Amino acid sequence: MAKKPPITPRSLILSLDYGGTKHTAGIVVKAKRNWLKRESVYSPAGADAKYDQATMLNLARKLLSGVEGRLAAVGVSFGGAVNAAKGVVLLSHHIPGWENTHLRDLLQKEFGVPAAIENDAHCGAFGEFKFGAGQNCASLLYVTVSTGIGGGWILDGKIFPGADGTAGQIGHIVVRPGGAECMCGKRGCLEAEASGTAIAKKMRELMRANPPENCGAGVSSAVGARQAAARAGRASPAPTMRRPEARATIQITGESVAAAALKGDPLAMEVMDDAAAMLGAGIGGAINLINPERVILGGGVTKSGERWWRIVRETARANALPEMRVDIQPASLGDDAPLWGAVALAEKML
Amino acid sequence: MAKKPPITPRSLILSLDYGGTKHTAGIVVKAKRNWLKRESVYSPAGADAKYDQATMLNLARKLLSGVEGRLAAVGVSFGGAVNAAKGVVLLSHHIPGWENTHLRDLLQKEFGVPAAIENDAHCGAFGEFKFGAGQNCASLLYVTVSTGIGGGWILDGKIFPGADGTAGQIGHIVVRPGGAECMCGKRGCLEAEASGTAIAKKMRELMRANPPENCGAGVSSAVGARQAAARAGRASPAPTMRRPEARATIQITGESVAAAALKGDPLAMEVMDDAAAMLGAGIGGAINLINPERVILGGGVTKSGERWWRIVRETARANALPEMRVDIQPASLGDDAPLWGAVALAEKML
Repeated sequence: MAKKPPITPRSLILSLDYGGTKHTAGIVVKAKRNWLKRESVYSPAGADAKYDQATMLNLARKLLSGVEGRLAAVGVSFGGAVNAAKGVVLLSHHIPGWENTHLRDLLQKEFGVPAAIENDAHCGAFGEFKFGAGQNCASLLYVTVSTGIGGGWILDGKIFPGADGTAGQIGHIVVRPGGAECMCGKRGCLEAEASGTAIAKKMRELMRANPPENCGAGVSSAVGARQAAARAGRASPAPTMRRPEARATIQITGESVAAAALKGDPLAMEVMDDAAAMLGAGIGGAINLINPERVILGGGVTKSGERWWRIVRETARANALPEMRVDIQPASLGDDAPLWGAVALAEKML
Repeated sequence: MAKKPPITPRSLILSLDYGGTKHTAGIVVKAKRNWLKRESVYSPAGADAKYDQATMLNLARKLLSGVEGRLAAVGVSFGGAVNAAKGVVLLSHHIPGWENTHLRDLLQKEFGVPAAIENDAHCGAFGEFKFGAGQNCASLLYVTVSTGIGGGWILDGKIFPGADGTAGQIGHIVVRPGGAECMCGKRGCLEAEASGTAIAKKMRELMRANPPENCGAGVSSAVGARQAAARAGRASPAPTMRRPEARATIQITGESVAAAALKGDPLAMEVMDDAAAMLGAGIGGAINLINPERVILGGGVTKSGERWWRIVRETARANALPEMRVDIQPASLGDDAPLWGAVALAEKML
């Protein structure tokens, strides 16, 4: 009888993405490019680091149970400042209690396999570089344009963390001196001028400054109708998902402003155009400084349509020197970019 | 009789720095840190690439003649765009005829040894990294603040050239949207707001806008005296090197504005303070993007005194996120930084 080949169990990669409130875990078979399992959980308001750690461990154990194979490595994307070399979380900007947590050691002890951690923007850049829109680029800048604006660099095919592990903070370069107040204390930071939060805030300000009579379609006209109703002494219509125009009067978000701009609302278009131009100016400056092969944009605000993309690209081109390439592409991994980056981090150790 | 040890001639490095009008060649013994010979020549106005090539070759041959040793390698710093990997000069911004010159091949053929070429800002960064103010820094940004503003990056201990060989163009990031016109066609570039040329231009503008009665000491008061003399119908004093106050009325340079600011001239101080703040803002932005270990400033404008340095550092600190280090130091190799960088380029090949 012929000898059976030895059974080598397949190697599994556990990927963890610790967000502000959303935590995601995924499992892939080594070198495979689809999730065996993938699940997110949300922390309640007021959750601390201990709570989030326990939540993530429970989620990971649940996903791993019953999966055929042998866990080989753990990769972690963390939403905050990280010392990747030491495997330490320095702090989270959202969750208390993370200061100086030896997360890599904790996970290595828990799972008995090597672990690696990185900041989420760096992980996102690495994910797009390895598996997404940045494949075959020796250098790239990855920018997430979401509630905030963050970024990460791949230089010479590696994450470039910077001297303090904080490189890529394109959200806090000043693109409009004296402009909108930023969370960081400065004014006119890219994040304060072009993020989803900034877009919503500017829309509210513009609507206050512009009487409803002058407004066109979309968000501002919805508010106009509501204000006209209020002036006429009538109760304004109750917000409901069935009445998007009424809901928009209460929930002005980056998304709703973008949607209104797509419908031709003049105020919303003004806000979106300006935000796109500010982003393009910031990216053009970054290109002048580093001359990357490609710039990859992810995050919710990048779903704002052709016009937004055109203005971003044109403004970046106008701000970069003629001899610099300007190749700006949409991210292809969506919200999973950091999770895939964490997979790549883990595989690098094998 | 004991056998004599074999005579191995010492290895020489030839270092060449092709500037706009000034060309410098130097010779060092491999691994030694002083010039055996070093000499500069100037090209006349209207010189082209052929002229400059011949001039530099003559200078190099002259320096090499009679020097004991064997030439081992040639390193080149070039004031213009370079494809270092291919050894090709793409163009000079000042001298016609350099387009697509295979300078590395020309030199290898001429001298029969390996040659390497790089852009002068990258060479300056490499020189400071290897032998100057950036020793032991894994990453640094080198900025020359002179008639223009240029820069170069050392990342992970290597020159980071960028995808098109043009990384480090900090002079063309916009620090004041809508500000002063820049040679590149944009407005408010760092170079147009903080270079020596920009400082002189702003001083002239401020002096035109401010009647001499309001002026204090230094440049503006010298002009004041001259204008008052003119109004009184007297011939204004002839400019002479012995009457610096009169000369200053004709030759307003970055240097003379800096000197006047040091003497307390209020207009000159206003100009210098603003230029320093613009530079600090630009550097703060670059720090946010790349988080380098150190920033090194060279060029004539950096000799503008303590106050200028303090404002540069304070503004950079205020523009960078708190978690970023801000370590800004003066270059230590002066105008020789690119020439020393070219030495390091050559030695890397041995």
